[in-house]
Amino acid sequence: MSDRDFEYKLVVVTRQDLKLSPGKMAVQVAHAAVSCALSAKRGEPEWFESWYGEGQKKVVVKTPVLQDLFALKQTAERAGLAVALIQDAGMTEIPAGTFTCLGIGPGPANIVDKVTGHLKLV
Amino acid sequence: MSDRDFEYKLVVVTRQDLKLSPGKMAVQVAHAAVSCALSAKRGEPEWFESWYGEGQKKVVVKTPVLQDLFALKQTAERAGLAVALIQDAGMTEIPAGTFTCLGIGPGPANIVDKVTGHLKLV
Repeated sequence: MSDRDFEYKLVVVTRQDLKLSPGKMAVQVAHAAVSCALSAKRGEPEWFESWYGEGQKKVVVKTPVLQDLFALKQTAERAGLAVALIQDAGMTEIPAGTFTCLGIGPGPANIVDKVTGHLKLV
Repeated sequence: MSDRDFEYKLVVVTRQDLKLSPGKMAVQVAHAAVSCALSAKRGEPEWFESWYGEGQKKVVVKTPVLQDLFALKQTAERAGLAVALIQDAGMTEIPAGTFTCLGIGPGPANIVDKVTGHLKLV
């Protein structure tokens, strides 16, 4: 399956500066993905069903700056995409309330790429 | 928030032997979490709502043996828990069709722990 077979995607933007352990990062990304998927299922059911039916493509990218999460959230919302800004419960590794990542989508790849296409893969 | 505040959890069992990159592992765990959450929303809506309302606790654990995923899947199903065995689309790092992880739950912590409580955290 090549990248071009996917017309829908969900992107999770993570904070490079937090240097989370792989397990901790996986949990944060999964929080964002579940929240976004449920939000899109309600708000954009056709996008959600297309994405899920294709195999729920997910991409994890990174940003060096916390403030980027807030700016990207606004841009994604204006594009009509579901968003989920995740704060950690703070039981391990980082203080409670730390913003860890931002989920965007699922939505059409060309719309999502306009928001996150410039960010590097984790 | 202490661990005891959570009465429901979703666990993802990952394969230690695959040595996936952190980004790749996060995507696989998120696939399992989304699939399990949607499955539980349909099949065990009270468990799903309780889990999501608590803050969707997730735990990532590891197993050294692929065959454990199949055995754990059977045990979890017998316990009435949602399960999602994830196969990778195989675009990077590992061959297409590789089993990467198993999602279990969400469900009551005491039921989930009977299935996965012996496994080590990632």
